[in-house]
Amino acid sequence: MSGQRYKAVLAYDGTAFCGWQIQPDQPTLQGACEAALAQLTGEKVRVQCCGRTDAGVHARGQAMHFDLQHPRPPPQLLRSLNAVLPDAIRILKLGKVSEDFHARFSAVAKEYRYFIWNTPIADPFRRLYSYQVKDELDIAAMREAARHLEGTQDFAAFSANPNREINGTVRELYRLRISRRGHEICISALGNGFLYRMVRSLAGFLIRVGRGELPPAAAQAILASRLRTARVPTAPGHGLFLWKIHWVPTKAMAPGSASPHPPG
Amino acid sequence: MSGQRYKAVLAYDGTAFCGWQIQPDQPTLQGACEAALAQLTGEKVRVQCCGRTDAGVHARGQAMHFDLQHPRPPPQLLRSLNAVLPDAIRILKLGKVSEDFHARFSAVAKEYRYFIWNTPIADPFRRLYSYQVKDELDIAAMREAARHLEGTQDFAAFSANPNREINGTVRELYRLRISRRGHEICISALGNGFLYRMVRSLAGFLIRVGRGELPPAAAQAILASRLRTARVPTAPGHGLFLWKIHWVPTKAMAPGSASPHPPG
Repeated sequence: MSGQRYKAVLAYDGTAFCGWQIQPDQPTLQGACEAALAQLTGEKVRVQCCGRTDAGVHARGQAMHFDLQHPRPPPQLLRSLNAVLPDAIRILKLGKVSEDFHARFSAVAKEYRYFIWNTPIADPFRRLYSYQVKDELDIAAMREAARHLEGTQDFAAFSANPNREINGTVRELYRLRISRRGHEICISALGNGFLYRMVRSLAGFLIRVGRGELPPAAAQAILASRLRTARVPTAPGHGLFLWKIHWVPTKAMAPGSASPHPPG
Repeated sequence: MSGQRYKAVLAYDGTAFCGWQIQPDQPTLQGACEAALAQLTGEKVRVQCCGRTDAGVHARGQAMHFDLQHPRPPPQLLRSLNAVLPDAIRILKLGKVSEDFHARFSAVAKEYRYFIWNTPIADPFRRLYSYQVKDELDIAAMREAARHLEGTQDFAAFSANPNREINGTVRELYRLRISRRGHEICISALGNGFLYRMVRSLAGFLIRVGRGELPPAAAQAILASRLRTARVPTAPGHGLFLWKIHWVPTKAMAPGSASPHPPG
């Protein structure tokens, strides 16, 4: 690498995009970010995100890194990027990082949140940002099922394409929590990595449990089968948000490094 | 009138509509509601709303009434309407009313809310539902200005077109409150009636006060002038929501009528 590496945290409304990954003649998040950087710098810039999102999936805390040959002050670069990006995308934070930072490999955990609007009448203001389920869901049953899914497990049955998972199908799900506020149900999944459409598959399964179509303990048999079947549907993309990334401690903050406080 | 009158409470995301009032070859809320009713009933139905909203303005609690020659059970009609309406519009409540109910004239008060997102970085998920103001606003000054605007006043200076107000320009503003939650500021206006773009004019003025461009007491001089000038800008429509309608007490609930509780 030459030049300077930058890390950016960004939020986007995924409604109008065909997902993160660049595709010819399609609006994509990667394409929009790279076009904005090219417009501002005149350089051909590649951006690397932390976790690719599918069409219609949103982000509150996606992250990406990129390198510029000619460095710029981060506050100015942040403002300039937000001035040229589509208004459905906003850079929330931007800073210089060392060249060993990698948006994908420096992440130690990712939190996704899946939102369900659980009432017979849809909400026009949530229709693009949550999945409406008309039948009242049994939160206690969903929570019981979620407890079976936490921990280090083979999640092959919760990948939309287990045969193409090049890094195997074992992941650690640190936490799978279900909260309710009025008609809104939120499934929060914190893990060290996620298989293809894994959170939407977990949500699809938990919704079936909440409807009483499957008992909570079915989670164990499904995990053990390692087979993706129709028992596990993929919930729609528009309910899903990439919420927050947790990073490996930076050099300045690593245990044993110099205290950030002045001595004395 | 023959047939049956219905009252409906509805919410809509106004982003894609050219306002409430029907216009040829334009997507309007009135047009969408009348088309849905015609499709379901085969009747030519006119809907009358409580308060017309402009292009891009939203509603959490708009109301309308309409008459059907061939009555239908309200729960079935509500479900059928929501099945054929665009998903940006949802009927929240629907019931039969007597023929003296009128969505406009039976309302005793209306509450509008104007949302400001007050921080330098926009929020992609609020961009269509709040007005971003980058400069930090002085809430205390806005509240002081709001106190001058409450009460029965001649609001000619806060109408976008005072010469065309056929019912005069005096209205009673029962309450004008400003609340803040994080970066979100909400201006809530409760009144017995509002002039053309009055809430957006009040919001535009209060934002200028919040920026320090006008002192709070300027409200008094502007009201007294009865002249609409550039001192009062019209804030953009997409921050505005028609929030809630208050009604004249119905016969069953009117003071002195029979108790709703069984005797004994």
